Amino acid sequence: MKEILQPADGQRRVVIERVSPEIDCGRFPIKRVVGEAVVVEADVFADGHDQVTCQVLYSRGGDKEWQSSPMTPLGNDRWRGAFSVAKAGRYEYTIEGWIDRFQTWRDGLAKRIAAGQNVHVDLLIGAELIEAAAARATGEDAGRLRQWARRIREEKDIQTATSLALEEELFRAVRRYPERQSAARCEKPLAVVVDREKASFSTWYEVFPRSCSPEAGRHGTFRDCEAWLPYVASMGFDVVYLPPVHPVGRALRKGKNNSVVTEPDDVGSPWAIGSEEGGHTSVHSELGTLEDFRHFVSQATEHGLEVALDIAFQCTPDHPYVKQHPEWFRKRPDGTIQYAENPPKKYHDIYPLDFESRDWWALWNELKRVFQFWIDQGVRIFRVDNPHTKAFSFWEWVIAGIKKDHGDVLFLAEAFTRPHVMYRLAKLGFSQSYTYFTWRNTKQELTDYFTELTQTEVGEYFRPNLWPNTPDILSEFLQIGGRPAFMIRLILAATFGASYGIYGPAFELCENMPLQAGSEEYLNSEKYELKHRDLHFEWSLTDLISRINRIRKENPALQRNRNLRFHYIDNPMLICYSKTTDDLSNAIVAIVNLDPFQRQTGWVHLDLAALGLTADRAFQVHDLLGEGRYMWQGSRNYVELTPESLPAHILRIGRAP
Amino acid sequence: MKEILQPADGQRRVVIERVSPEIDCGRFPIKRVVGEAVVVEADVFADGHDQVTCQVLYSRGGDKEWQSSPMTPLGNDRWRGAFSVAKAGRYEYTIEGWIDRFQTWRDGLAKRIAAGQNVHVDLLIGAELIEAAAARATGEDAGRLRQWARRIREEKDIQTATSLALEEELFRAVRRYPERQSAARCEKPLAVVVDREKASFSTWYEVFPRSCSPEAGRHGTFRDCEAWLPYVASMGFDVVYLPPVHPVGRALRKGKNNSVVTEPDDVGSPWAIGSEEGGHTSVHSELGTLEDFRHFVSQATEHGLEVALDIAFQCTPDHPYVKQHPEWFRKRPDGTIQYAENPPKKYHDIYPLDFESRDWWALWNELKRVFQFWIDQGVRIFRVDNPHTKAFSFWEWVIAGIKKDHGDVLFLAEAFTRPHVMYRLAKLGFSQSYTYFTWRNTKQELTDYFTELTQTEVGEYFRPNLWPNTPDILSEFLQIGGRPAFMIRLILAATFGASYGIYGPAFELCENMPLQAGSEEYLNSEKYELKHRDLHFEWSLTDLISRINRIRKENPALQRNRNLRFHYIDNPMLICYSKTTDDLSNAIVAIVNLDPFQRQTGWVHLDLAALGLTADRAFQVHDLLGEGRYMWQGSRNYVELTPESLPAHILRIGRAP
Repeated sequence: MKEILQPADGQRRVVIERVSPEIDCGRFPIKRVVGEAVVVEADVFADGHDQVTCQVLYSRGGDKEWQSSPMTPLGNDRWRGAFSVAKAGRYEYTIEGWIDRFQTWRDGLAKRIAAGQNVHVDLLIGAELIEAAAARATGEDAGRLRQWARRIREEKDIQTATSLALEEELFRAVRRYPERQSAARCEKPLAVVVDREKASFSTWYEVFPRSCSPEAGRHGTFRDCEAWLPYVASMGFDVVYLPPVHPVGRALRKGKNNSVVTEPDDVGSPWAIGSEEGGHTSVHSELGTLEDFRHFVSQATEHGLEVALDIAFQCTPDHPYVKQHPEWFRKRPDGTIQYAENPPKKYHDIYPLDFESRDWWALWNELKRVFQFWIDQGVRIFRVDNPHTKAFSFWEWVIAGIKKDHGDVLFLAEAFTRPHVMYRLAKLGFSQSYTYFTWRNTKQELTDYFTELTQTEVGEYFRPNLWPNTPDILSEFLQIGGRPAFMIRLILAATFGASYGIYGPAFELCENMPLQAGSEEYLNSEKYELKHRDLHFEWSLTDLISRINRIRKENPALQRNRNLRFHYIDNPMLICYSKTTDDLSNAIVAIVNLDPFQRQTGWVHLDLAALGLTADRAFQVHDLLGEGRYMWQGSRNYVELTPESLPAHILRIGRAP
Repeated sequence: MKEILQPADGQRRVVIERVSPEIDCGRFPIKRVVGEAVVVEADVFADGHDQVTCQVLYSRGGDKEWQSSPMTPLGNDRWRGAFSVAKAGRYEYTIEGWIDRFQTWRDGLAKRIAAGQNVHVDLLIGAELIEAAAARATGEDAGRLRQWARRIREEKDIQTATSLALEEELFRAVRRYPERQSAARCEKPLAVVVDREKASFSTWYEVFPRSCSPEAGRHGTFRDCEAWLPYVASMGFDVVYLPPVHPVGRALRKGKNNSVVTEPDDVGSPWAIGSEEGGHTSVHSELGTLEDFRHFVSQATEHGLEVALDIAFQCTPDHPYVKQHPEWFRKRPDGTIQYAENPPKKYHDIYPLDFESRDWWALWNELKRVFQFWIDQGVRIFRVDNPHTKAFSFWEWVIAGIKKDHGDVLFLAEAFTRPHVMYRLAKLGFSQSYTYFTWRNTKQELTDYFTELTQTEVGEYFRPNLWPNTPDILSEFLQIGGRPAFMIRLILAATFGASYGIYGPAFELCENMPLQAGSEEYLNSEKYELKHRDLHFEWSLTDLISRINRIRKENPALQRNRNLRFHYIDNPMLICYSKTTDDLSNAIVAIVNLDPFQRQTGWVHLDLAALGLTADRAFQVHDLLGEGRYMWQGSRNYVELTPESLPAHILRIGRAP
């Protein structure tokens, strides 16, 4: 409750409520990429019958002046306005509302005239309001307004005077100088974090450099991996994501298929970080040197690829931290260090960092230094492993700190955990997030999940990055559905998500053998051994991937998430959805057969208005996947999709000429 | 964004989100009456896999210590807890959550044992946790916990030791001393304003004292009105509400039926306040003296009635303020004072107070003095006329200021305006509010509106007071539906609303002649003339009103609003709804025929679980209106209602023996 004191704002009559977007009462910023719009709504009203006017105020961090954008009424005291974020960085926005005396007066005047009343005094009131606006005006407007007021005052003929008073030009001129001294604003401004384009639209390829050797059995290097860059780039990817590149622990190293028994030549898991060679700021010597790594980054750049580095804050028993900073690990009563566990499972080869350590501040700063180290090597994208097992407040602090100096750095949260935890990490600053997409297969599941991600408040801060597979997850759908299943999941990922990625070459080669029935682990997983693959496999999906990634690049509608709309289709195995640009100049309709085994047919019922179409004119749809072109008319149209050839249409709607 | 500084709470791992109830990010308090519960929910979770525990903390204004109430998990990281507000005043509440190390350890131990693992070190970890709890414990618990830890440490037999460690009693003892030093709390506590019972449950009778004279044509007085008190009390009302009792303006006084032409004996409108006799702190001499008014208040108290006074902050041209404080009124350019208007309508007899006056602070204080003056005369309830045409910030300030010294004062907002404005006034502190009930007649309209008022956040701060009629509103339904329409609207008001009122005796005498077709004004409205009525009219609704008000008093379920539930009934002219106490010991089902002309029949489908019933046992329903008793079984039951005799059942559900 406000203190019972003389309030400073006794004359402030306008109220602003229910601002949207506003995440957790303004505790967290919303997210945009450069060039996007922020649409702001609020309930704005005052006591009594006076009309109010309001506007969105916004400014980019560092700018002192607010810029303004008008708001228009939607009915029931709700108002909407918008502004664009032209540059990366942090913007603030708020709403300002005030009593619009001139408009209130002007509408009253019109009613009085219609009722045949004497408006002599009303005209004098209007002249006073115009003079007040003149006093606020700048440049030529001041004189013009004063003259207008004088003419209204001096005009003897009431009809001429009222015509003068009601002129549109006068109305617009007065509105340029609103009476804002008693204007109300929201209690505190809200924030937008604006990232570069890639935060929203990115296409990822995950590859283990150690498997890039041209010779079977030899540990691959960064140099070997460089030879793969043309292949990755040719498929249209723009991010090449490497699992951790640090020295792999020796103590308790896991063997093939996660065996606790190790052979001498076992290479261990890249996520078992740290050995006598070094820790999180060292490079595994078998991959090459730090200089090789930097060379790899520059070569990737040459191919239009950014390198995303995996940051996994956990240590093997060999990690230098264990000796140098024993206080960062929890001790067990028997004097040993607490290993990772999820009872009854035990992971003796991994020591978690203790974020409840008394020395947490030094730990935080060291981990920040790790990011900074790789930024200094040219990395601008980090895929963070299991961020949900580290303190939330650490992430907010470290991401804000890094972005303050390096606004172009992006963070992808690899958290597969409970919904509130995943959303919290996104609110705290992660630019992108892994999702439950991997396990959403049916039409209902996909519709529910992507409605939540794109049509609710979640879409303001959580940017999905969709992965049909990862080194940890070979989904049951891929295991049982064969090559068509891979095509289906690829197309869904690439069209539902402005960002998506695959773990290759396992994906394009349609590798689908699980460790055992009921497991999502790969048999002979690359996590524990070197792989040597034939990229020229006849059934490889490289062509389809290339085509889809080209479609994504050429169609801006596919580069955003919040523009998703579902359309009805009368077959539960077929799903239909669209994405459009704000101006509807680019409209894509995807129809996917979710059944990897059977041909499916159905009638789609398009929401024509959402696509900028009308029922009375035919329109062309161009299948960007299959290259067919069809004339459709009206909402209801027939489709037929055969999984083994092409399980989807990606239709671009032709504009009427 | 938080500043990029060393955060003080680096070790705090628990997050609390989406607390409910929370009005506008905690800007406004919720409302309760003495004895009610506050049910609090929130998403509470932490990073990683540790279990969290949380509790509601609450305290009454002035108390230094928080009291606590446990929360239980609802799934998906949502938790719920509750506390009761035993006294009037202001309470605060917040949520505290922490990592529950002992429970995390205990569940892990059980899993390890089930997996047949060696738990020797785990038992030592548990002993440490128990010792830590002992260090926090008080009284006997400290020693008992220490002993428990020692026994677990020293026990050689692992099976015995684990049994000891898993004992329920130990678990409960440790939980009494949680490790709260790293506990998280919501950013700021939320508030509850707790009023006396009448804020929620009240039954109002509006009467014009000047029409209480036993002789036709003579101006009634407070003394005359005293003679009516037994009549009002006998019908079961507990608030007698008087229109303004101040001197009525002479200048531009309105005649009968709001005529601008006045006869010498016209009495004017009580809402045209102020004359040479005085203003808002004076009593109209024709009603009596201030002493007479105080006598009236004391007599009402004798009859179990509280007096609600109408406060209408507006002035006639004769009001003393006009001369004493010309700065509180707006001037027109021709030097006259701005009268009230809603273009093209003009109300020359009313001068609105200018809340944008430069002298607003003096104006606010004077208006507060008006409330204080009437409080000093014994008034504790104010019905505020048109609060939506005065500044919002004034209401927040004046209500808080008055309630600080007089916590028992209640304010009813007479605002019939746009939804957000009505809700805002309630948030600002009004104890009760007029509603749109008067114009909600169909089943759909009633269902939608009362769902909004009782089942959404609105129910946390907006307490409806339902009026079938007022001196300003004779609804079309009453005009056309005759006596059955009055019965229907009475029953709906008295059962939907814990608070309701009627404007009498116009209501019980079923007066229903409008000024003209399409108007909601009464013909020969009491607002502009004296009335002389025969209270012994044969068709008067006094018996029905008495019966309904007795039912309301005897059934606590009808004394609350947020316990409303609708039940399906297969006839659109019949509506069925229930109210129950929290413990289901009192359950009322109302079934009302909304058609004032025709007998209607239908099958009701009760939500048995909501009423504490099961399908397998018959139950008695006792019609408290018609006195019939029926045995019903299961959800589906037949009803038949004839409007001219009794258009409703008010059924009390009998408990199974």
